[in-house]
Amino acid sequence: MEAMVVKQPQPVTIAFDVMGTDHGPAEVVRGAAQLSLDSPHIHALLVGDRTLIDNALAETKHNGERISVQHAADFVGMDEKPGEALARKPNASVAVAARLVAEGEAQALVSAGNTGAGVLACARHFQLIPGVRRAALATVYPTRSVRGAKEDPFSLILDVGATVEATADDLVTFAVMGSNYARIISRNERPKVALLSNGVEPQKGPPRVVEAHARLSEMKDIHFIGNVEGIDIPKGTADVIVTDGFVGNVCLKMLEGVHETVVELAQYAYKESLRWRAGLAMLSSGIQRIKDITDWNQYGGAPILGFDRIFIKAHGRSKAHAIANAGKVAAKVVANNLGNAIREGLQK
Amino acid sequence: MEAMVVKQPQPVTIAFDVMGTDHGPAEVVRGAAQLSLDSPHIHALLVGDRTLIDNALAETKHNGERISVQHAADFVGMDEKPGEALARKPNASVAVAARLVAEGEAQALVSAGNTGAGVLACARHFQLIPGVRRAALATVYPTRSVRGAKEDPFSLILDVGATVEATADDLVTFAVMGSNYARIISRNERPKVALLSNGVEPQKGPPRVVEAHARLSEMKDIHFIGNVEGIDIPKGTADVIVTDGFVGNVCLKMLEGVHETVVELAQYAYKESLRWRAGLAMLSSGIQRIKDITDWNQYGGAPILGFDRIFIKAHGRSKAHAIANAGKVAAKVVANNLGNAIREGLQK
Repeated sequence: MEAMVVKQPQPVTIAFDVMGTDHGPAEVVRGAAQLSLDSPHIHALLVGDRTLIDNALAETKHNGERISVQHAADFVGMDEKPGEALARKPNASVAVAARLVAEGEAQALVSAGNTGAGVLACARHFQLIPGVRRAALATVYPTRSVRGAKEDPFSLILDVGATVEATADDLVTFAVMGSNYARIISRNERPKVALLSNGVEPQKGPPRVVEAHARLSEMKDIHFIGNVEGIDIPKGTADVIVTDGFVGNVCLKMLEGVHETVVELAQYAYKESLRWRAGLAMLSSGIQRIKDITDWNQYGGAPILGFDRIFIKAHGRSKAHAIANAGKVAAKVVANNLGNAIREGLQK
Repeated sequence: MEAMVVKQPQPVTIAFDVMGTDHGPAEVVRGAAQLSLDSPHIHALLVGDRTLIDNALAETKHNGERISVQHAADFVGMDEKPGEALARKPNASVAVAARLVAEGEAQALVSAGNTGAGVLACARHFQLIPGVRRAALATVYPTRSVRGAKEDPFSLILDVGATVEATADDLVTFAVMGSNYARIISRNERPKVALLSNGVEPQKGPPRVVEAHARLSEMKDIHFIGNVEGIDIPKGTADVIVTDGFVGNVCLKMLEGVHETVVELAQYAYKESLRWRAGLAMLSSGIQRIKDITDWNQYGGAPILGFDRIFIKAHGRSKAHAIANAGKVAAKVVANNLGNAIREGLQK
């Protein structure tokens, strides 16, 4: 008689860069500890100051069989210039972690530290997927409409800063990468992919956008819905919005700043209105929660796409729960072999 | 004995394109009628269907000495493609009005119709100011901080769509034009001018932005504060934000869409919360007013900068009050000789 077969998630080791985050090493350690109790298929390799890590582990309930530690003497601070800092500190935790992933000691890297240093560490230690000329930093953000089997209220936008000037080729590559990532993460078999432009017509935008539009229109494996405009970003018209790193970075930072500004503008404009003020007071806890949801990077992090290894960038302000989520996202991306999917998508 | 001298505003004739707006010709006529009663120095030249205009005037209190009418047989609809429509209808109201301004029958043009048709009509009938290679469409938008003697809560951003690809030269020109316009309109002697980029450091951004940064840093007549990021747009860090028409258009449309999305997202996320719902209900009138203030184009319109004649584009949804405001802005810009100021600024 055969044993019942229960499908187990594939075991995976995730390297966590423990250092250089806003809430300190212990917060990242607590995230990994939570994973060690919740997610038996994930092994956490913690990279950073061993003493700090051991102290944090001693104070946190965890499963020691699913956590190991690799000492790294240095780290890159949040406000350091990435290039200079990595040159001065070859054994910064993010670089050590990237090397461990490159060498196969782990299958993915999660960091809540300096974003630029993370991108640089990937560029130095990982290989670009064949067919990819430039990597892209993608991020999820909340939208009005929902998508996929899980009614995911988040859309993906890329690039948001890795490749400041993207060619038409790069934009097409970003579309393939973003589509495959969204398919895996949002359980959305046919994510709607759009190019960001200054009008919906195919001929709108600079030449690189017009050319990318023409090429994406002919790709059968991409559910390309054409151009979208700025207004479609918060609406969530597309599941994946493709743009270059310059425009994407400006948009992302605008999204980050706009919520609190709307609230403050309201206060400025209507400070005379008692009714308005009472309403604001009632809303204050709700507003705090909007702020939380607007801190969308808490919800799984932002992938760097285009390398043969997975890097998930969690927000610098991530708490343990967000770190654990980023680890789960990384494990899911590894299990679904995103790299292969991108390679195949680019060959079509 | 000499007569007392009271400084009178300079008399000015403004051509109003009456047709093709969201609220119909009568709304534009009512705006001009209001001006004829309020602003003795402004003469309104109404361009459009004479019968419709006369009917609207017959129903509206106005000063007939300060209003004249020029018949135009056609007009460009809001959803028409500007180039095709103007080719088919050489006597569209916006084209007739632009010709009248070019011929000196009026000193400025105000239109609440199709933006693209307005830009094209200017390009065909006006001359670029010497030293200006490409025109820019500027717009004002509300910010958290205020500026100038009038505590103006609006910033200026340009270009938002006239010049999709701007060179470093163009960006420098836009900075000079925007700085002079803001100085006149916001009574702000030294408007803070910034370049939009993906980081505040001078070397951040594509080459055109880096080069423009270097050149603006050396111009003494511009109060250049360096690069700003997307988050600074809603904050109002700068009084004038300079970018190319592609990025500016995306940003502007994002601003337009983001407010209602924040509110709807809140409803989506917390529909279970009664407290939240009660707060929203109390806020509904306030929210309507935020929407009004967010319809910032109601507050005077958006100039097309770079031509030897003034064009103020009012929002398609403008009511009479907003049309009258656009007329006042146009008169102020004429009185302060913006064209000269830009010409001189570019020579320095």
